[in-house]
Amino acid sequence: MTASAGQNLKVDPDRLWDSLMEMAQIGPGVAGGNNRQTLTDADGEGRHLFKKWCDDAGCTMGVDAIGNMFATRPGTDPNAPAVYVGSHLDTQPTGGKYDGVLGVLAGLEVIRTLNDLNIRTKHPIVATNWTNEEGTRFAPAMLASGVFAGVHTQDWAEDKRDAEGKRFGDELDRIGWRGEEAVGARKDDMHAFFELHIEQGPILEAEGRDIGVVTHGQGLSWTQVTVHGKDSHTGSTPMPMRKNAGLAMARILEKVEEIALSHAPHAVGAAGHIDVHPNSRNVIPGKVVFTVDFRSPTLSVIEDMEARLRSEAQAIADAMEMEIEFEKVGGFDPVAFDEGCVTAVRTAAERLGYSHMDIISGAGHDACWINRVCPTAMIMTPCVDGLSHNEAEEITKDWARAGADVLLHAVVETAEVVA
Amino acid sequence: MTASAGQNLKVDPDRLWDSLMEMAQIGPGVAGGNNRQTLTDADGEGRHLFKKWCDDAGCTMGVDAIGNMFATRPGTDPNAPAVYVGSHLDTQPTGGKYDGVLGVLAGLEVIRTLNDLNIRTKHPIVATNWTNEEGTRFAPAMLASGVFAGVHTQDWAEDKRDAEGKRFGDELDRIGWRGEEAVGARKDDMHAFFELHIEQGPILEAEGRDIGVVTHGQGLSWTQVTVHGKDSHTGSTPMPMRKNAGLAMARILEKVEEIALSHAPHAVGAAGHIDVHPNSRNVIPGKVVFTVDFRSPTLSVIEDMEARLRSEAQAIADAMEMEIEFEKVGGFDPVAFDEGCVTAVRTAAERLGYSHMDIISGAGHDACWINRVCPTAMIMTPCVDGLSHNEAEEITKDWARAGADVLLHAVVETAEVVA
Repeated sequence: MTASAGQNLKVDPDRLWDSLMEMAQIGPGVAGGNNRQTLTDADGEGRHLFKKWCDDAGCTMGVDAIGNMFATRPGTDPNAPAVYVGSHLDTQPTGGKYDGVLGVLAGLEVIRTLNDLNIRTKHPIVATNWTNEEGTRFAPAMLASGVFAGVHTQDWAEDKRDAEGKRFGDELDRIGWRGEEAVGARKDDMHAFFELHIEQGPILEAEGRDIGVVTHGQGLSWTQVTVHGKDSHTGSTPMPMRKNAGLAMARILEKVEEIALSHAPHAVGAAGHIDVHPNSRNVIPGKVVFTVDFRSPTLSVIEDMEARLRSEAQAIADAMEMEIEFEKVGGFDPVAFDEGCVTAVRTAAERLGYSHMDIISGAGHDACWINRVCPTAMIMTPCVDGLSHNEAEEITKDWARAGADVLLHAVVETAEVVA
Repeated sequence: MTASAGQNLKVDPDRLWDSLMEMAQIGPGVAGGNNRQTLTDADGEGRHLFKKWCDDAGCTMGVDAIGNMFATRPGTDPNAPAVYVGSHLDTQPTGGKYDGVLGVLAGLEVIRTLNDLNIRTKHPIVATNWTNEEGTRFAPAMLASGVFAGVHTQDWAEDKRDAEGKRFGDELDRIGWRGEEAVGARKDDMHAFFELHIEQGPILEAEGRDIGVVTHGQGLSWTQVTVHGKDSHTGSTPMPMRKNAGLAMARILEKVEEIALSHAPHAVGAAGHIDVHPNSRNVIPGKVVFTVDFRSPTLSVIEDMEARLRSEAQAIADAMEMEIEFEKVGGFDPVAFDEGCVTAVRTAAERLGYSHMDIISGAGHDACWINRVCPTAMIMTPCVDGLSHNEAEEITKDWARAGADVLLHAVVETAEVVA
């Protein structure tokens, strides 16, 4: 680290904020947020704006065959692998202005700041926009970074269809953002990846910290539970003759809470999705389908929670003489981010005097897949009230500034300033 | 009771069964049952068939201004008030062939049998079809018997609209079944009312009894409960910071069970309707709306259950720091049927040698309203597996025969055979 990358090296927070606000003009939502879903016309328009800004910053734009965008600021060493920085520009259908966008535009702001100060780095710096992180239009989430990292095949991803039956690959062609570069071709030329993202949770705000140093990404297990009771009239069925699948569900939900709390503080568990059949006021639920979401940064904890759910729920169903089925409908293993990259983030926050704490990412992010390809870390900034995936999602300019400053320092340290 | 009404007096079970099967041809369902919803063309067609059969049996058909049908077999005393017998011909959208229909056609079978045997009664006998018992197309249930009994006004009933916005009164005119007679005009000329109905519950079959002597109709209380938690990400919200409205609901459902069981054996309680918001696998439920159905034949028990639900659910919400709202969205008081009529039913079952037991009706029936107007009782027959409001609803010909025989004897005893 040279003197020029010392504590006075800072981004331009107004320029970053203005870019965030300008990008938010594209694909506006109905309530102050954004609807810029992946591979829509609005996504295409957002990509053009990002490319224009990158061009203006002197970068060379590369686009791969699944639409991932890579804007390169050259390094001084032609053989040095690049430091990647970015996130995603697509949003939820009723999404906010910062989820993903902050990470992409802060990456651009890093390059703009280095340009302003005429700072050169040994390693190139590449501002990145990963296609379809949200997964709302085309499930699953983190789709294109997953293909890039070899988690999914490209064909599988391109065959995904939206609710109207439109194909991912066709929509990519339609908006004109299929590039020439083979997906993942640059995998071996990546020195590191840093992703700045809003927390999407309440911890940093509650703890009064500017910066979350993300050490791990939680693993996830989704178990869909189906309890088969018996539809019957709420009036004419005596209590001892009922097979109330809703009551069985209630007892299982209490167990889910108990199981998650037994692995405090990092494990969590809940059911967000619950469908009751036939869902009529005077019919005892004959079937209930719900999905239990367990998360932990420790794989063995996830496995234990999943196994206990199955055995305890089975016992509840047995005691109530009902059938129960379990189906694992989603999951990914916990991620431990690269120690070197995590240290670079923590050191940057220290150097800049921003309050910080280590934190675990509860949500999935592109960085979770890219961590398989190269040393990776994430930086989190608070968001108001923990709110995200909501048009009311909000952050302060000071939080954006702190996050971008820490990103800048972590990137510059990793990319090595050339005097 | 004369010798001619002794234990050899029986209906013709084949004729009754054939009429049930012929009526079931009108408004067939998609799975062997019926879709003959009130005031549809199929309902009109069913009414014409019933009228033809009543005409053939020598009855005089009266129709009131809300479509209730009254087929009178005269008595020998011109001043004697009539004995009414019947139920409803309308069905659920995916209903069975017996719910309601058995009671109407068994009423007709009583008249046909008396005709066959040339038995005269002092009191007239009136076979009745009440309009819109089901309430599925136009809520609430038991609508026209309620207007007849003065529970609802006729204007209020006629202004009810179906899901397509069609008005009850307009649909009644459209199918041509608005009669001349003022609704309820004959209220003071009713000696008694008997309704035969399938149990729609599992008790009689489980107990191996042919006949349920219905002593009471359960009262009902519907409380809609809304728990306000906080939508938040299932991954990034630590357990202590969650406001999981789904978990609060689970705890309240356990209390509902406990409260109902504390008033065993006759009280029941459950939630059949549960809506979770936003109902997404990775969002902790921010709001849950569900309806608690409590029933008991004793008014004070219903009031106690309702009060305990509110206080215990409030305590659960308070402990979890959530808001909770309660709204009473439905209810009716318990019904005690007329002792004389109930005794006539029980005596008839005894005399005929059918196995029987006293039973409480868990569902609402037209008889519950008509009990306000004249001495009333109900007879129940088993149904397979307790199943009703379902196209698979089934009964045996022997059960239908037993119910109609008991109905015949109760009616004949009340209408007084003339030697």
